[in-house]
Amino acid sequence: MQVLPAVDGERLLRRIRELAATSPIDGGGCSRLALTDDDRRGRDLVVAWMRELGLDVRVDGVGNVVGTWNVGEGDPVMTGSHIDTVRTGGVYDGNLGVLAGLEVVETCQRHGLVPPRPLAVAFFTNEEGARFAPDMLGSLVYVGGMPLEEALDVRAIDGARLGDELDAIGYRGGAPLPARPPHAFVELHIEQGPVLEEAGVLIGAVTGVQGISWQEVTVVGQSNHAGTTPIRLRRDAGLAAARIAVFLRELADRYGGDQVCTVGKFDVFPDLVNVVAARAVLTLDVRNTDEHALRRAESEIDDFLRTVAETDGVEISVRRLARFEPVEFDDRVVAMVERHAAAAGCTVMRMPSGAGHDAQMLARTCPTGMIFVPSHKGISHNPAEHTDSRDVEAGANILLRTMLELAEADFR
Amino acid sequence: MQVLPAVDGERLLRRIRELAATSPIDGGGCSRLALTDDDRRGRDLVVAWMRELGLDVRVDGVGNVVGTWNVGEGDPVMTGSHIDTVRTGGVYDGNLGVLAGLEVVETCQRHGLVPPRPLAVAFFTNEEGARFAPDMLGSLVYVGGMPLEEALDVRAIDGARLGDELDAIGYRGGAPLPARPPHAFVELHIEQGPVLEEAGVLIGAVTGVQGISWQEVTVVGQSNHAGTTPIRLRRDAGLAAARIAVFLRELADRYGGDQVCTVGKFDVFPDLVNVVAARAVLTLDVRNTDEHALRRAESEIDDFLRTVAETDGVEISVRRLARFEPVEFDDRVVAMVERHAAAAGCTVMRMPSGAGHDAQMLARTCPTGMIFVPSHKGISHNPAEHTDSRDVEAGANILLRTMLELAEADFR
Repeated sequence: MQVLPAVDGERLLRRIRELAATSPIDGGGCSRLALTDDDRRGRDLVVAWMRELGLDVRVDGVGNVVGTWNVGEGDPVMTGSHIDTVRTGGVYDGNLGVLAGLEVVETCQRHGLVPPRPLAVAFFTNEEGARFAPDMLGSLVYVGGMPLEEALDVRAIDGARLGDELDAIGYRGGAPLPARPPHAFVELHIEQGPVLEEAGVLIGAVTGVQGISWQEVTVVGQSNHAGTTPIRLRRDAGLAAARIAVFLRELADRYGGDQVCTVGKFDVFPDLVNVVAARAVLTLDVRNTDEHALRRAESEIDDFLRTVAETDGVEISVRRLARFEPVEFDDRVVAMVERHAAAAGCTVMRMPSGAGHDAQMLARTCPTGMIFVPSHKGISHNPAEHTDSRDVEAGANILLRTMLELAEADFR
Repeated sequence: MQVLPAVDGERLLRRIRELAATSPIDGGGCSRLALTDDDRRGRDLVVAWMRELGLDVRVDGVGNVVGTWNVGEGDPVMTGSHIDTVRTGGVYDGNLGVLAGLEVVETCQRHGLVPPRPLAVAFFTNEEGARFAPDMLGSLVYVGGMPLEEALDVRAIDGARLGDELDAIGYRGGAPLPARPPHAFVELHIEQGPVLEEAGVLIGAVTGVQGISWQEVTVVGQSNHAGTTPIRLRRDAGLAAARIAVFLRELADRYGGDQVCTVGKFDVFPDLVNVVAARAVLTLDVRNTDEHALRRAESEIDDFLRTVAETDGVEISVRRLARFEPVEFDDRVVAMVERHAAAAGCTVMRMPSGAGHDAQMLARTCPTGMIFVPSHKGISHNPAEHTDSRDVEAGANILLRTMLELAEADFR
């Protein structure tokens, strides 16, 4: 029987706490908006750890940092994530994936394990999109999905230019872009949702990332006195908006499976108790792992908007805010994650990711997968974000074993 | 064949224009918030006209002004309304009823017509409620529905005390309160809704004022990520609020008749595209002329809120904002309005008022009715408020004839 090496969970958790302590916020979280001085302090700490482990550290033109162990033995097996956070972030989101990568390397080193390929640990710039749009900008540029020059000219919500902010914190490097694809990529991340906890399962073998359709719907009706205007003479924009919100949930119920629909933003004008709303603006967030289902949902929504416009006598216009097709991860990588979790005695389930991750960009260029560990109550982007220490350790062990197998795998 | 006297429409319209010109606003309206300097200028002008007509002018402790012609011949037949406006008011709302009263008196005087009872023209303080709450405060105090001392201590939205503001503009008088009830009361007012215009009818014989139920509903659910939270694990406060809004319209459709229901205010929190709403606050405005129907509607709404709380896993709390029982006008007065309109060759229909009016307070103490004339497109509380000159004149003529008959009527 083969004795498998195991990560040092306490060492990993200590690094998570130390990274969080570079920019702590009330409630136990951290705040590290991309390319701020907070981000610089975090980056400097992680780069120092990379150097302590003897990694070859390269920074590219958009500030992505890749630390590679055993450069030169072919394309590396890469892991990683991001260390930027939202303004009121938790300590696990992104950070776990990067620091677990360091832990994998340190574990191999201490056990004298030298995989047949280099292992690389990356953190990508501006994954959250909390300061610069779009989110996942660094990994998008890394795989050639956005030209570097365009990325450098992106403006922050505070007006700053991305290229200037890179220079200001000293993280505009020279590594070529788009980067040469790694042999394979696997990312450990907290789920940021309640599915694993609710199912009582420890490891999610992530099958892909849901496609996203965001639309903003504006309904224009007629402002009227709530007392003196008979129902039949009304053109109530707020009512039409409410019908759309109810329809969207009915659609999600009808489609079932991974389909989710959300009306998160809902504003009416003039928003007064005794005035029929003249105008309403609401957003439709529709996600599915199946592009065909997503298109069918969009088409049904179009039809419903036309129907409501007619029955309620209102004008409806739609502005597209975002549209991403679903991403499917490589089934060989998904199966590896699943197998290693089961072999380690962990409960495991296949599941899609509802949120975007750097792995979905890497999936364009190499076999890619993700490992999810549970988020307590599904809370994320919040100082209260929490994952049990044992789950953090278990996730890092599955990452270690998956990376070791990927280093042996021949994907030709 | 009796030749009936008729009002001078041009003289009435001139007074309407002159009163509006004391505090004009862009777009052709006027702004005369209760007990401001704007209100004082309007009051001074109307009182001057009253004195020109030889009326006995009395001001009571809450600033109501009553001008009486031929004091001493028994209780007067009273008409009137208000001259305060909302911040962006039209020129007809309230003002028409007061100035048409003066026109009735002047017409009688010029035709040598002396009715068997005095005729009185009143304008009541703070009908709109745009500066002090509640609305119809002056007429409420006039009929004994609120103690004078309580009214004087009411605070304006700008913090000022009502009694101090009365003193400041010189309209705290000594006429006793509650006032001795008049023999009868009839008020001419613009409809402020689209019903007459839509029906192609000139005169509304107002049968009463709708009862009003205002409730504020707060829905508390759970904030969640719109991508990572499966539908079955959601407690979406915004969705529950939308269901309530749709239910309210279905209830109005089902009840039919005069039933109106409005969700005019609808706010969700945090109001972000990719976050399931944690909380929603919406208002329910429900009106009916039938108190039993109103209570039945309130009870059905209670039941529905309980159902939604259960099915959607949210907590729902309700705060009552206002509740007025319907007011029925005296059928003898309603029939008189109807008869005089028909005799004058005007189309006429019985209808309830959806908005509140001073007449509903007077109805507590004496036989009362109201006359409506059409509002173009139902627009009111807006500089674009408009009623055709011929309709203004027709309404004033029906007021004249109704007052003359009321002066002959024996209501014992």
